[in-house]
Amino acid sequence: MIKRIQTFQQWLNEEKIDAAIITSTENVFYFSRFYSDPHERLLAIVLFQREEPFLICPLMEATSAKDKGWDYPIFGYKDTEDPLQILTDEIKKRVGNGTTFAVEKNHINAFRYETLQRQFPRASFKNAEDQLNQQRLIKDDAELEKLEKAAELADYAIRVGINEIKEGVTELQIVAAIEYELKKKGVEKMSFPTIVLTGEKAASPHGTPGLTKVKKGDFVLFDLGVVYEGYCSDITRTVHYGGPTKKQGEIYETVLRAQEKAISMSRPGVSCGTLDMTARKIISEAGYGEYFTHRLGHGLGISVHEFPSITESNPLPLKKGMVFTIEPGIYIPNEIGVRIEDDVVVTDHEALSLTRFPKQLQIIS
Amino acid sequence: MIKRIQTFQQWLNEEKIDAAIITSTENVFYFSRFYSDPHERLLAIVLFQREEPFLICPLMEATSAKDKGWDYPIFGYKDTEDPLQILTDEIKKRVGNGTTFAVEKNHINAFRYETLQRQFPRASFKNAEDQLNQQRLIKDDAELEKLEKAAELADYAIRVGINEIKEGVTELQIVAAIEYELKKKGVEKMSFPTIVLTGEKAASPHGTPGLTKVKKGDFVLFDLGVVYEGYCSDITRTVHYGGPTKKQGEIYETVLRAQEKAISMSRPGVSCGTLDMTARKIISEAGYGEYFTHRLGHGLGISVHEFPSITESNPLPLKKGMVFTIEPGIYIPNEIGVRIEDDVVVTDHEALSLTRFPKQLQIIS
Repeated sequence: MIKRIQTFQQWLNEEKIDAAIITSTENVFYFSRFYSDPHERLLAIVLFQREEPFLICPLMEATSAKDKGWDYPIFGYKDTEDPLQILTDEIKKRVGNGTTFAVEKNHINAFRYETLQRQFPRASFKNAEDQLNQQRLIKDDAELEKLEKAAELADYAIRVGINEIKEGVTELQIVAAIEYELKKKGVEKMSFPTIVLTGEKAASPHGTPGLTKVKKGDFVLFDLGVVYEGYCSDITRTVHYGGPTKKQGEIYETVLRAQEKAISMSRPGVSCGTLDMTARKIISEAGYGEYFTHRLGHGLGISVHEFPSITESNPLPLKKGMVFTIEPGIYIPNEIGVRIEDDVVVTDHEALSLTRFPKQLQIIS
Repeated sequence: MIKRIQTFQQWLNEEKIDAAIITSTENVFYFSRFYSDPHERLLAIVLFQREEPFLICPLMEATSAKDKGWDYPIFGYKDTEDPLQILTDEIKKRVGNGTTFAVEKNHINAFRYETLQRQFPRASFKNAEDQLNQQRLIKDDAELEKLEKAAELADYAIRVGINEIKEGVTELQIVAAIEYELKKKGVEKMSFPTIVLTGEKAASPHGTPGLTKVKKGDFVLFDLGVVYEGYCSDITRTVHYGGPTKKQGEIYETVLRAQEKAISMSRPGVSCGTLDMTARKIISEAGYGEYFTHRLGHGLGISVHEFPSITESNPLPLKKGMVFTIEPGIYIPNEIGVRIEDDVVVTDHEALSLTRFPKQLQIIS
């Protein structure tokens, strides 16, 4: 943590930023190991070039923050107090009125932003996110260990889910069984609400599991992830119940080819855009281009969606230590949906899958 | 939906607002029945005084939005497109450069806000939230029906949880059992991650369930809620495993007295602040004032935390149709935590509990 704070302080120093007000759950966790979603309440870490950082959080969370090892000052506020006033007072004590601040512009809301602008009328506000994304982009060994463990648990979850498939079982029952088994293993949190979709429902890439029953002749799509010590996994597998038609088999194999090709091309120096275009080309050439309606993948770490974005227009070259998903899909509205997703880490000369559940089409009979 | 849009348009008209850009999942749902959390992607409904509203969302969600009954234009964008550009272009087509806009200042992020300010440099931006909170504050019969059903499911969840208590079972196992049973009943979503805390862990009001085992002599605290057709419930019960000490019993009875007193005082005309102060006074007089570290309650509806806030400083008088929680607690750090929470609706002359699980101290043996 101290090294992360020091790296960030060096940036503040170079950019001549008096104070950075960090308000997102993920970046507060990044600096403090304290993970908290305070809903509409304010949570912030404020960092300075030289002065000690401080944390401000609801009073009832102050003890947890300390327990996680945050050794700097904590200001716990009551619901009757104005936390933004406390925050700006504490900043003024340390750096006066300041001339340059940094905030997370994609996170801080307009109300808080305008309040800061009013409190520091002569100051300009930079975006701290590029620096934070940069710091978080390359994972260290301790982070990789957690990501690997999270991926292993995701593999296990897929196995549990597949074992639940039988005539008449609903999507939600399968979700329930998966999460039950994971909780028994000590998993506190999924990366996002577990998705199990069957038949035509899988054609909606972000559909919600419901009381639809699994039936023979359909694909069953699982998309889920586990949070392990603050780090996320994200896996998708699509299996077939009964045995695929020719068209279903062809679609599956197309997605698989695109996915494996993109993984095999992932190595230092290759751009994110190249990966997306490669997978997209394979799907387009098979005649399904219009049905691959999202980017190829996204970075993964403390957030389930973080940098780098694996999208056509991203020229960023891959580097050792980057972790992201590769998840092409084909969605024919009201008919069929197939997606295959792994989490990969870039190493010296290649990429390794952290998720390892088999990808040959599994046919459940 | 049409009535909600019309009421809002009337406000736009009175305030001479050219367009309102609504970006929160909850308010988009309020106007459209389309519930979507697009993570970092843009989701928005734009409303005008006279022109038809439109919705903008990721392309892959456009079908779902239509299926939910949104009959106005939908702009689905690809990951490679700039949705803010599409949004501002569409606004300009309808109202030109505009002079007055409204956004949700506690939701829209600084990046999007500054982009809008740049695109409409002569415009001023008002906050739409007071109006939206106002519209959502009084629940209609259809909403109350959903809230009642959500509360009923929360009661059921508490029953399931209590039945799981036995020597050696972990907090997470109880959570797993609760969510498994609810999913089997068709519940797609909890209002927030289910909380089961035992012993001293319950002393942290927003603690996270883990592998701590239930043991005799401890309280077990359940805090959970269910989303039913977009509407949330939120209940807390604290039960004792084995039988309470004198001090434990006294703390429980103090919380219960404060909770019941606040409910019995909830009726049209009484202020939110009065409820909080009444409960706080009972707890203070029993000598535990410093251990009641949060507000008495919060409004409940599409969001699990919405208006009205039941806090000491809120002078808002209650009105028929308001729905909120009453949830006093006493938390002695590293020792004990007790909270009791119900969802109540204000009627003509009193308040009715939507959650109805018994509140006499349950002793599990």
